[in-house]
Amino acid sequence: MDYFFNAADDVVDDGLSGLARIAPVRITGREAGIRLVVDREFEGDRVAVISGGGSGHEPSHAGFVGRGMLAAAVAGDLFTSPSVEAVLAAIREVTGEAGCLLVIKNYTGDRLNFGLAAERATREGYKVRTAIVADDVSLPEDVGARGLAGTVLVHKIAGHHAAAGADLDTVAEVANHACEALASIGLSLSSAGLPGQSREPRPPELGLGIHNEPGVREVDPSDAADAVRLALEPLLKAAEERHGRDASWVVLINNLGGCSTQEMAVLLDQTLAQLPAGRVAAAVVPAPLMSSMNMHGFSITLLPASEATLEALASDVEAIGWPGFRSVAEPAVFEPDFGAGREPGSGERDPARADQIRAAVQTLIDSRAALDDLDAQTGDGDTGTAFARGAQAIGDALEADRLSTGDPALLADELGDILARDMGGSSGVLLSILFTATAAALREAQPAAAALAAGVERMQDYGGASVGDRTMLDALSPAIEALQEGSLADAAQAARRGADNTAEIEQAGAGRSAYVRSEALSGIVDPGAEAIALVWQALAG
Amino acid sequence: MDYFFNAADDVVDDGLSGLARIAPVRITGREAGIRLVVDREFEGDRVAVISGGGSGHEPSHAGFVGRGMLAAAVAGDLFTSPSVEAVLAAIREVTGEAGCLLVIKNYTGDRLNFGLAAERATREGYKVRTAIVADDVSLPEDVGARGLAGTVLVHKIAGHHAAAGADLDTVAEVANHACEALASIGLSLSSAGLPGQSREPRPPELGLGIHNEPGVREVDPSDAADAVRLALEPLLKAAEERHGRDASWVVLINNLGGCSTQEMAVLLDQTLAQLPAGRVAAAVVPAPLMSSMNMHGFSITLLPASEATLEALASDVEAIGWPGFRSVAEPAVFEPDFGAGREPGSGERDPARADQIRAAVQTLIDSRAALDDLDAQTGDGDTGTAFARGAQAIGDALEADRLSTGDPALLADELGDILARDMGGSSGVLLSILFTATAAALREAQPAAAALAAGVERMQDYGGASVGDRTMLDALSPAIEALQEGSLADAAQAARRGADNTAEIEQAGAGRSAYVRSEALSGIVDPGAEAIALVWQALAG
Repeated sequence: MDYFFNAADDVVDDGLSGLARIAPVRITGREAGIRLVVDREFEGDRVAVISGGGSGHEPSHAGFVGRGMLAAAVAGDLFTSPSVEAVLAAIREVTGEAGCLLVIKNYTGDRLNFGLAAERATREGYKVRTAIVADDVSLPEDVGARGLAGTVLVHKIAGHHAAAGADLDTVAEVANHACEALASIGLSLSSAGLPGQSREPRPPELGLGIHNEPGVREVDPSDAADAVRLALEPLLKAAEERHGRDASWVVLINNLGGCSTQEMAVLLDQTLAQLPAGRVAAAVVPAPLMSSMNMHGFSITLLPASEATLEALASDVEAIGWPGFRSVAEPAVFEPDFGAGREPGSGERDPARADQIRAAVQTLIDSRAALDDLDAQTGDGDTGTAFARGAQAIGDALEADRLSTGDPALLADELGDILARDMGGSSGVLLSILFTATAAALREAQPAAAALAAGVERMQDYGGASVGDRTMLDALSPAIEALQEGSLADAAQAARRGADNTAEIEQAGAGRSAYVRSEALSGIVDPGAEAIALVWQALAG
Repeated sequence: MDYFFNAADDVVDDGLSGLARIAPVRITGREAGIRLVVDREFEGDRVAVISGGGSGHEPSHAGFVGRGMLAAAVAGDLFTSPSVEAVLAAIREVTGEAGCLLVIKNYTGDRLNFGLAAERATREGYKVRTAIVADDVSLPEDVGARGLAGTVLVHKIAGHHAAAGADLDTVAEVANHACEALASIGLSLSSAGLPGQSREPRPPELGLGIHNEPGVREVDPSDAADAVRLALEPLLKAAEERHGRDASWVVLINNLGGCSTQEMAVLLDQTLAQLPAGRVAAAVVPAPLMSSMNMHGFSITLLPASEATLEALASDVEAIGWPGFRSVAEPAVFEPDFGAGREPGSGERDPARADQIRAAVQTLIDSRAALDDLDAQTGDGDTGTAFARGAQAIGDALEADRLSTGDPALLADELGDILARDMGGSSGVLLSILFTATAAALREAQPAAAALAAGVERMQDYGGASVGDRTMLDALSPAIEALQEGSLADAAQAARRGADNTAEIEQAGAGRSAYVRSEALSGIVDPGAEAIALVWQALAG
């Protein structure tokens, strides 16, 4: 399975069915033989803007049906123009007294089928005007430029005026004015894949259409900046020849189908950065607008940014395919606030507590190899190293007289900051959360054991582990519980029992042991819990 | 070049720069060491909804910054959680008296870094609440569900309430309520490509995260319908277990990055068709919301559709990444109007004109091989066959007495209809346009020659060719010009001269000869022009 499609012949109908489930449209049934998508709320008192063409360019054209854009879209088979009868039926479906405008891409099939439909509709008494989009600047003018993504801007501009109640002459005039003003070019790294057909690899090309026609020339862009440069150079030249070097532009960067969101953001950045400074007024939000199935490429469209054009492009629409229109500016950059940075050791000193800390530090440094060995049996063997690193940093702070050993809340904060910065890893952050939350509780005048319990609770909240999950908690929780009723020695004993019990836990519930087979865990003490038990033992003396 | 990226290390910064050129945000500079994206218009009098995580999930999270969604986003490296310092700086940047809500995806790194930042921010006096999104239903609950695209719905719902002025308790409550209610699952045909890394092919998988973690199981969907079925079955089961079988749903179909617009439309259709009838209230417009670089896959998210949820999801936002929210209905289907179908031959008869037509028909049938030969020298050798086919159809109509030979306007219409239907190809449609437009001019009481000139003008409009382009026009135009001043014989002579002259035209300007080398055309009469000259000769007798 290469694509999320059903039968190749169903792609177009399936897609229109999907659209019709969430868009404000009516569609023809699969048995109708033609495919029309009509604005459900369109009233014939306004000019009907109608477009269409081969399918495979979604969201063009059906995705642009809705108030403010198209009154109807006619969809052919993949990359194949719809029939005269289909276009004519679309005209009949939506055109009232105000008449209709057909927006046609400059491909022979579309021109002829829409053209004959226009003539027949005229015979039937409809007022019909046309606008032919030929925005591709990559071919010599006498061969005939193709219609590319600029078509969607014509939909939007014509649709805006039609929705605003303009008459047919006016709508046709603004549409044709836009057609003359548009300039587009495409660049792709690959051709489009059609369902049921094998895709022959093609080199990157510049100046391509939207139906796998060959590009005007092969290119070999070195990176995104280079790809944009290759496309912008001929595009801007053609556009400036017509509109002058002082023109201000509306930019549309169209995803031909296969670019990721990340690529589109980078292409947007490069396009706006490479266009002359201050000369881009606004941009359509980058998205697939006129795609070519999954073609891994993009096109860029430029349109002079008059006030009327900006207003027409900015107005609201009901169509689900329109990604929005934004004014353009240089990125607004600010300096982040990293905080004042607190001076450690600003509080009082308590030599007895300093001794306790010193003992715990030494224990962890001495236990490094043993804890690493324990971890190696169920994990990646670095628990001892991590705890020793944290312990060393605390020891260093102590010897440098940068710990407020006589002020429990300050001390807890200082320990938390050191552990986050110097111990690192999940354990460092978890212990930092424990100490930081404990400090907050101490500041609210909670007794030490209760404050520690509050810290453990936060550690559980963010860490996601519970007692019994083979983590530090299995020693920490019983120790703090014991401390609330008894002495430091009681706590140390409870921690020891808790750590030892982890050898009996067969299934780890959180932390990295969670993915280890249970038989592999049996009989082995969790190294984190063991480290915690060692610390309590040292603190108790 | 595999992707439209610059240096692999620049992908995230380039993308944010692109975003900041069109979105209402401020960003940190590349030298800041952390990446924040902040709503430019956010005022601290409202609750600040803050989210973030690893990059590579665009438009998450930076693309959702803007009024009505996020006040700030914190972006880590690709697939890597941002640091505690980065999250803390984001909190400082936007949080005022109203406090902030951190929306965190349930990955250890994000939980811990956002968690510690929350604790430190609290220490600094900020009011901080959290909501952890764990919407993935594919893992057993005790292992811990991952955060997937449902996260974006939490952004939207929390952002809506924050923008509406709700207090922190309320915003946190609705966000956590949504977190508990969400259910998501992913399915992909391939893994994600990271710039600068080679991508090992992987089989299709169900139940995957958004960082190339392995899926819960390999799958082998036969088509789009089957892929949706595979994803919906466990998803709906999990969702209905929590919310009952009568629940009505909001559906989000997320493009993991590599699906084309066409695929997303088909997946949307299937998802909405396969969910229990009448049980889907609304859907987010399918788009990349929480992508995994270019992963060729999708995820589906279900959320119970309460009235409050629908209201929160439907409100307007300024964020550029939100694709819109739509109510869901069965497709509204209509029958196209193919027109009444006119009865041919309803007008008068003129035996003399019938004879003229009969002569022209016979000439074209007799010239089939000669014209095909002429065409074979510059084209695909079917001009004679096409003209003979059209002629035969006209001859058949004549013998069946279905041509209004005595009513020029009706006759022109009838000929136009026959040529479009039975001659086919570009030439058939072009001649049909000629006759249909001629009929319209005749009906406006123009003389025959002037009416034909008007028809030729339309043919030129839609066909895009001019005299001198080696097409039928090179015989048609001089003939009609001669007819306006002189006799049918003059016209026939002019057509003959015009056709003969095409042998001297070295460059074809339109039609299929446009792509043929000029030396290949030299000395060869255009077969279309020759056919036209033969017709005028026959008409002139």
